Parts: sequence; structure tokens; C-alpha cells
Amino acid sequence: MARDFCPGYPAPFDALVADYPGEDVYPLKDFRVEWGPIFHRGRLDGSAKVLLLGQDPATHESISRRILVGEAGQRAQGLLAKIGIESSYVMVNTFLYSVFGQGGGNRHAKDEDIAKYRNRWLDTLLVGTDVTAVIVLGSLSKTAFSMWAETQPEAAARLHQAPIKHPTFPESASASGSTTLAQATADLHQNWNEALPGLVAHVTPDVPANPTPYSGTWLPGDLVRIPDGDLPAGSPGWWCDLDAWAQRPSGLGPQIKRATITVTVPTAARTWPPLG
Amino acid sequence: MARDFCPGYPAPFDALVADYPGEDVYPLKDFRVEWGPIFHRGRLDGSAKVLLLGQDPATHESISRRILVGEAGQRAQGLLAKIGIESSYVMVNTFLYSVFGQGGGNRHAKDEDIAKYRNRWLDTLLVGTDVTAVIVLGSLSKTAFSMWAETQPEAAARLHQAPIKHPTFPESASASGSTTLAQATADLHQNWNEALPGLVAHVTPDVPANPTPYSGTWLPGDLVRIPDGDLPAGSPGWWCDLDAWAQRPSGLGPQIKRATITVTVPTAARTWPPLG
Repeated sequence: MARDFCPGYPAPFDALVADYPGEDVYPLKDFRVEWGPIFHRGRLDGSAKVLLLGQDPATHESISRRILVGEAGQRAQGLLAKIGIESSYVMVNTFLYSVFGQGGGNRHAKDEDIAKYRNRWLDTLLVGTDVTAVIVLGSLSKTAFSMWAETQPEAAARLHQAPIKHPTFPESASASGSTTLAQATADLHQNWNEALPGLVAHVTPDVPANPTPYSGTWLPGDLVRIPDGDLPAGSPGWWCDLDAWAQRPSGLGPQIKRATITVTVPTAARTWPPLG
Repeated sequence: MARDFCPGYPAPFDALVADYPGEDVYPLKDFRVEWGPIFHRGRLDGSAKVLLLGQDPATHESISRRILVGEAGQRAQGLLAKIGIESSYVMVNTFLYSVFGQGGGNRHAKDEDIAKYRNRWLDTLLVGTDVTAVIVLGSLSKTAFSMWAETQPEAAARLHQAPIKHPTFPESASASGSTTLAQATADLHQNWNEALPGLVAHVTPDVPANPTPYSGTWLPGDLVRIPDGDLPAGSPGWWCDLDAWAQRPSGLGPQIKRATITVTVPTAARTWPPLG
């Protein structure tokens, strides 16, 4: 079987991934540094036309070692599909490590030490490249992008900027009790719909764009499978699929929860003969 | 922090990892195809002087996406250390996928379809390269190597061949009840000790060899940590460590067991502040 795969980190990214900040910069109190940094997803060969700036990796990302692979990533992939971008994108996060606990992300939103390494990635991806637009997911990422833009005003001025709500805004907003999941989903869709025309106007698509507005509820096709070519060689196909496959255990206490990720082949991918 | 990482699959290996056999060649009844193929560990840049031919990947390997990372790999790494090889090695397995169930490996030991792809790797790694010796771990690997050697008799004749007991022979032999763990460990050590002089004589070491014989029981230093440079960029340090960190759940039935791997940060690596 032939399957695309992510070739990893060519120069100059090889030097970046060999020299990343650890717990001296990302405190263990606020970040799950123990799971290692997760750097990117998408093209590092100069073919990217759009950059997505996300927030922080979660459980699926800690196993697949690429960012925006779970639910948030599949919603983002669907947004790219609407603007005709199938492969010419690259994604990096505001934080290399998963945020731990309440407020950890906000406490480090303007952290200059964290920005220093992040800006090396953004410089490499955005200064003198073919990227024409930046999709900024959520408020922490907006702050991160602004911090970079201050250091590279000319490069930033050439980019179309689309700061939008984070793909998991419906879940996070409704969890706080201030709105319902349905209302927050409708809000997210309205917000993303407003960004579509600008993105279509400022991005040369891979295939003709089809910016049908979001409906207010998630429809089939709004979430798009992660392309095989975004994950490392040999990654199981279900790592790209829409079904969730990684979770932290509940009910065993906070110590075990932080220490553990359970990886489960989704039911649809359990194609082996019946067992016992 | 600076940390080495495995750069992945340069040409001609990029074509090999993009075109691997799936369940048409490896039946789901006998192999855990659902976890994806796991190809190698070590140098693919032509610097390898020794090739290790292992058997099949297990739980740790299914997460780290490199072979011989768990207990067996750390014992093999220790053997390489004794012959002065710290980095100039490459490892591939007899099977791309983890063997499932009793007898699955034996049933496919002489499988020509499986050999076809495996031999492409062995051709690339052994014909016209700087590899001078092959360490063959266990009987299935010995069969696999013989199948390759028949197709490349001249290249095989130039190689020093060290067929030795598999690193987890003590556990597998004693599990069958025919011997004790202690006796099987002593047997393994005697077997490996017999191979040391030939390997020292036929391998140009990275550092001076120190082939102190194994004692009959595992001593500190017999197991060696997996080098950072063997795992993908950003892999957590504890993926290289001696403490086990991946397991299949027991007590939940064979279906869940096959579908699940639980990844747990070892106690020594839980350096975060105390949690609730």
C-alpha cells in the first residue's frame, strides 16, 4: 500500500527541533513538559501559503507528535478545505507543551522567554516565504501573533490576518456555563463565516475554493480527516480519522491522570477477526 | 535544551516507508496490523557498521515508532556498547507488525511475500555499504536473514554473522515452564559471550570495545538507555529510559487488550509539583 507521510524536519527546522525550551522556560506547574514538545503539522518545504497559529497540543497530539490532529485539528482542516487549501499549509502552536490546569495559558500569554523560541519558528515560516495569510485560532494565539508582529512589522504588514475563535470555543465556552453548546457553535460558525471572504481573497488555493458558509451546527464535511502526509511514516490510519483515539483516564486521581494517556483503536478500525 | 533526534527517512528509504505491505500480506489474524508498521531504529545515512535483525515490535515501539526501544532494545543496546558501538548501527525487524497470538510468527517465518519487502530493506542496508557484521536476534530472524542471504550470496558472504538468542529469551523460555528465568538468563549470557569475540574482531568500533563477559545475571550497565538520537524529534526523554512506560491493559478481555496501549510517565519522570 502506498501512503504519504510527513518527512520531518529539513533544514533550517532541524536546528530548531534540536534546541527547544524545556522546563526552565515552560514551568511544570503550568505545562505538561513531561510529554515533550510538539512542534508543527504540515509543510516545511516552502510550499505553505497559509499558516495556522494554534494554542497548545492535547492528548492525540502527544502520541501522534504533530499538532492539531484531534477534534480541533479536524475542524481547522475543514476550514482550510473551504478556502481550497488541501496541502499548502503549515501549523504551529502558541505553546510547545500542553497547558496544565486553569489559567496556565493566560499566565504565560505574554511570556517573553516562550515568545523567543516561537518567534524563531514564525520568522522562518513567515519572513520571505510564500505564506500570504495567517489564521490565528483563539485569544492566546492572537497575543502570540501580535508579539511576533511587533518584532517583524514589515513582514506582518504583508500578511492577511484572520484572527478567529478557537475551533473548540463551543466546548470551552459552554463548559463555563455562560452559554450553551448549540449557541456557542452558532457563534463560532458566524465568526468563521465572517473570515472566509478575506481568506479566499488573499490565498492562492490548491483547488477551487468552495466557501459555503457554516450552517450554525456541524454538518458532515465540516470536519475533514487529517491527511496521511501530515503524520510520521508508518502512523496508523486511524490516527488521522475523525473518531477520537486518545484520552486521559478519569477516576484515578490527578497524579495518574497527568501521568497517563490511553490509546485505543476506534471501534471502526478494529477489523481483526473476532477474539475470545 | 539541545537534544539529538532521529531525522527520519532520507532517500532511498523514503520510498520504502511510503510503500509498505498491509493486511494483504500480514494477516490481521496473526499480526497487529492496526498499529501500523514500525520500520527501524538507528542510522540510515550510511554510517552504520553493524546491522541488528530483530523480531517484531511491541507496545513501546508502537508508540515511539522505532523498533527495539523497550527491554529487548535496551539489552541489545548494551551488547552494542560492549563491542564499542555507540551510534554506528541500524536495526530492522523480521516483521513490520507486532505478532499476535501463539504461533503467528512461526507460521510466517518463511513467508515469501513478507520476505519480499524485508529484503528490499536488507539489500539497501547491506549491499555495497559499510556494514561488516549482522547480529541476528532469535530463530525467526535467523530464518529471515537466511532467506535474504540466498538472494544475495556474495554480499552475505562478506558479512560476519552473529546469530544469537533473542534478548527476551529468558522471559519466553521460562514462561514455557521448561526452564527457570535464572537458568535461561545464564544461558542467554553464555550464548552472547560466545558471540562477543567474533563481533569485536569484525566491527570497527566507535569507541574502544570493552567486551567484559556477561555474568549470568543482569548487572547495572548490561542494559543501556536508548540514545536520544534514535527517536523522533520532541520525543519525551522517558521514552528512552529503562523504566517501562507502555502496556496493554489486563483484565478487560481480549478485544480491549488488542485495541489499547496505555502510556504512563514512569514514577521517576513525574517531576511536576504535587497534585491534589
